[in-house]
Amino acid sequence: MKPTIRDVAKMANVSISTVSRVMNSPESVVESKKQRVLGAIEELKYKPNALARGLISKKTHTLGVVIPDIRNAYYAEIIRGMEDASKKLGYSLIICNTDADRNRLFSYLNTFYEKQVDGLLYTSDAVFPDYYKELKRLRMPVVLVSTHSMEYELPSVKIDDEQAAYDATAFLIEAGHRSIGMISFDLSDSIAGQTRYQGYVRALREHNLEFSKDNVFFIQEYYHDPYVAAESLLRQAPNLTAVFASSDVLAMGLLSYLYEKGIQVPDEISVIGFDNIRVSSLTIPKLTTVAQPMYQIGYRAVEKLDARIGGEADPQLRELVPHEIIVRGSTRRLK
Amino acid sequence: MKPTIRDVAKMANVSISTVSRVMNSPESVVESKKQRVLGAIEELKYKPNALARGLISKKTHTLGVVIPDIRNAYYAEIIRGMEDASKKLGYSLIICNTDADRNRLFSYLNTFYEKQVDGLLYTSDAVFPDYYKELKRLRMPVVLVSTHSMEYELPSVKIDDEQAAYDATAFLIEAGHRSIGMISFDLSDSIAGQTRYQGYVRALREHNLEFSKDNVFFIQEYYHDPYVAAESLLRQAPNLTAVFASSDVLAMGLLSYLYEKGIQVPDEISVIGFDNIRVSSLTIPKLTTVAQPMYQIGYRAVEKLDARIGGEADPQLRELVPHEIIVRGSTRRLK
Repeated sequence: MKPTIRDVAKMANVSISTVSRVMNSPESVVESKKQRVLGAIEELKYKPNALARGLISKKTHTLGVVIPDIRNAYYAEIIRGMEDASKKLGYSLIICNTDADRNRLFSYLNTFYEKQVDGLLYTSDAVFPDYYKELKRLRMPVVLVSTHSMEYELPSVKIDDEQAAYDATAFLIEAGHRSIGMISFDLSDSIAGQTRYQGYVRALREHNLEFSKDNVFFIQEYYHDPYVAAESLLRQAPNLTAVFASSDVLAMGLLSYLYEKGIQVPDEISVIGFDNIRVSSLTIPKLTTVAQPMYQIGYRAVEKLDARIGGEADPQLRELVPHEIIVRGSTRRLK
Repeated sequence: MKPTIRDVAKMANVSISTVSRVMNSPESVVESKKQRVLGAIEELKYKPNALARGLISKKTHTLGVVIPDIRNAYYAEIIRGMEDASKKLGYSLIICNTDADRNRLFSYLNTFYEKQVDGLLYTSDAVFPDYYKELKRLRMPVVLVSTHSMEYELPSVKIDDEQAAYDATAFLIEAGHRSIGMISFDLSDSIAGQTRYQGYVRALREHNLEFSKDNVFFIQEYYHDPYVAAESLLRQAPNLTAVFASSDVLAMGLLSYLYEKGIQVPDEISVIGFDNIRVSSLTIPKLTTVAQPMYQIGYRAVEKLDARIGGEADPQLRELVPHEIIVRGSTRRLK
């Protein structure tokens, strides 16, 4: 059985709070007691990292980052922003890839705890009740990045996904399109799935356009094939004149599929993506897209976390940063 | 001035080797001496992490990864391979982005040292003499990933870049091309620059084709614009029938540029890339490329590092993994 702080206190013949002080502010404990406590901690092999935490400076100047899928180009710019802000504020960044897997996430959270990171940048995934419980248990300052939580009082930095999807769809409507499809993430994805889908539906409704379930294809799996997603949408909705894809990589799959089928973009179908990743200006044709300020999101998240670590008041818990439509060559105005 | 182990020994009135034993195998030191040493360590604030290292288990089951540019899609698959092997072998991975900057690299190496990682995966960059000295100083087991060193006895996993570039060029020659350009990384890049350029030159020479300096454009800056690189090459060599690009992202810039100029791929110019990143099958046309087994490189590097950490003999210090040409739609055979 793992030794507890109680066992240490008993063996050292001191109070629990003295053990705690030895670990957290050893300079406040008289030498003799301190040595007894350290001796007991060692003999019992009690939570050695809690010990280490007491012996070294409380700050490690390191921030932990969890991201769900490092293969996704979306994170590259976010990490760059985090890096630059960390450099400015004197932090090192350690990045872990959770593969959107609960066990991996928990394992990394505990690694971060053991490594004594000063704070956590939690990226993209939703915060489920057991995640929140774990974050609470580890008592680690956290900022949510490109995600947020309405249930819990956690600080976050992201764009307004619903509004951004609304704007993408409205952009197509205002260009004269009436038959507009969407490739959407699954509705179980409360951050990039549900919100963007709702923005799309609201834009249609507010412009008095009919909504048809056939015009939307939902990605089911986390690791999906963008080409196959495009094929699926066009099979169920062959008469679209425009498509809103929930990510630039999905839009690239669509461009690739349409090219193979000999369907001209934007002459026959307009395509708008989402994110504005690095290669979205190298597609054929160049991709019109909803730009997220990824760099700024990462940068701002580190500043926000730093303020939190420093105990500063946070005037805005859930921060929204502005998105922007970048018009390139993959969309056109219908006559 | 930073306290040394000598200062600790003096204050505790023990030998230096006793201080060392307290830090590394405290169970071998009698309690009274140990407490004196711990007291002195604390009073002097001597290298607290070395202390922590002694108090906790020697293995942290964590590996550090340094990569030069996390924005580069090339690393995504490598990290996936590292992740999966780490999972299998019971490691966590902490990833740091050096921005190809010496100071950041050194700062992260020291962070890894302080965090007591079991070993280091050093990715892509060349190993300069001062880097090697620092690695030596930190006495951290290391495996080089997608890079190697001929000067130093460091284990590595990569493809044969020279041969891979040779094969890409020979593929174009065997398809009937005679006027073959190249977009190359700078020759100061000993891993992906010099080697691939040499492979290209050797293929031309062995096939009795004339080499012209005008047919090669060298990327000068680390953060370059792939579109501009393509434009520069075609300006200095307008009559090419095929181009070998040193990365898929460079090839995408070329496809984009040729499309804008109304030059048909592969009818007028064939394009072959290098890497086989995720989106290279979504380009227009789909990209022919030299595939690196990125996942395998990452996976194998972790296995190799694990063996090293475990003190196992390494039958092959510098491991080469096979590359492969993936023929898609961006190249054609000349009549």
